[in-house]
Amino acid sequence: MDSHIPDACVRRLSAYMRQLQHLTTLGVERVSSHHLAEYIKVGAAQVRRDLALFGQFGRPGVGYKVEGLIDELRGILGTRRRWNVVVVGAGPLSNALLRYPAFSSRRFDLIAAFDVNPRKVGRRIGKTVVQSMDDLEAVLAANQVHLAILTVPPDAAQDAADRLVAAGIRGILNFAAPRLETPPGVHVNQVDIAAHLEQLTFLVTNNHC
Amino acid sequence: MDSHIPDACVRRLSAYMRQLQHLTTLGVERVSSHHLAEYIKVGAAQVRRDLALFGQFGRPGVGYKVEGLIDELRGILGTRRRWNVVVVGAGPLSNALLRYPAFSSRRFDLIAAFDVNPRKVGRRIGKTVVQSMDDLEAVLAANQVHLAILTVPPDAAQDAADRLVAAGIRGILNFAAPRLETPPGVHVNQVDIAAHLEQLTFLVTNNHC
Repeated sequence: MDSHIPDACVRRLSAYMRQLQHLTTLGVERVSSHHLAEYIKVGAAQVRRDLALFGQFGRPGVGYKVEGLIDELRGILGTRRRWNVVVVGAGPLSNALLRYPAFSSRRFDLIAAFDVNPRKVGRRIGKTVVQSMDDLEAVLAANQVHLAILTVPPDAAQDAADRLVAAGIRGILNFAAPRLETPPGVHVNQVDIAAHLEQLTFLVTNNHC
Repeated sequence: MDSHIPDACVRRLSAYMRQLQHLTTLGVERVSSHHLAEYIKVGAAQVRRDLALFGQFGRPGVGYKVEGLIDELRGILGTRRRWNVVVVGAGPLSNALLRYPAFSSRRFDLIAAFDVNPRKVGRRIGKTVVQSMDDLEAVLAANQVHLAILTVPPDAAQDAADRLVAAGIRGILNFAAPRLETPPGVHVNQVDIAAHLEQLTFLVTNNHC
């Protein structure tokens, strides 16, 4: 597989995945590149180019089998297997994430949440019970966990990230700080919700249609 | 201003903004394109190209004034003015968003939350009190509101979006449904947290460094 697939393409693959899963709930079995293109608001040629990066799935005039395409996208995105995920920090954002229904169908199991505050430890959030940060390494060692979601206060983010990396975490979804230092081979994905609003103000202000 | 600035560029501008605001809290007054580049993990030439799209701010060997660059970025992103934002749906995600501290410094004021559930109406979340969806149009009319964050269940998303658009909303941050239909001139920004995890599984699976 080409190892230089742009981030924007990976984001589109996720968007196709989301729409394809939505189509399965509607009982739709086949989909055209035009439908997927309209959904993502790119050209149908872009969709065909994206999917052609990974082999030939569709047939001209027939389109793609929804289930087959979901499976191929999982192969690309690395989610044919399920992934255990831990959440570090048990504030309001963790509360929302632990109750977020879409993770499971996308193959992510949020198996544990951690906090330093003894008053939060033992509290149930969704299906998860908050555990002490003291137990982080033990829980990670006892489970197959390679992904973490970081929601601690900014000042605590780098220390928490260092512990996660030392315990074998390979990918961090970072809501906590504007920047984390991690060694090569550990991936950080920054989430900045205010940036999504800025994308809107940019478009509204500049009268894009 | 060039009206065909790519989304990826706008996202980088937000990332610069976030780092620049972080630098102001540290008392840093000047920054080089190299620093910003290292932060965003792109080349310094990319940073200079991004910022040059909007005019000539920096000086060779001297770098950018942090406060000046923040102001210029606000000019580009449309956030020299503050923006009122309403949140539709008052579940766990809204609870997290209404308590999220970074919106204010980025110029967003979450002024109201709405829910159809009478048991949630009147409940205080952060600085906001949950109001009835029956009052949506009146509240929007009484305030200058052009942005909404949609967190309702998927089945309720399109109806809520239609009401927001009819009441003058120009931009919707959509956590609620995989797709919303909106007329030209109304912008929708899709948020899909599972996609962020898929970006990580893609990188981890394909051994990117």
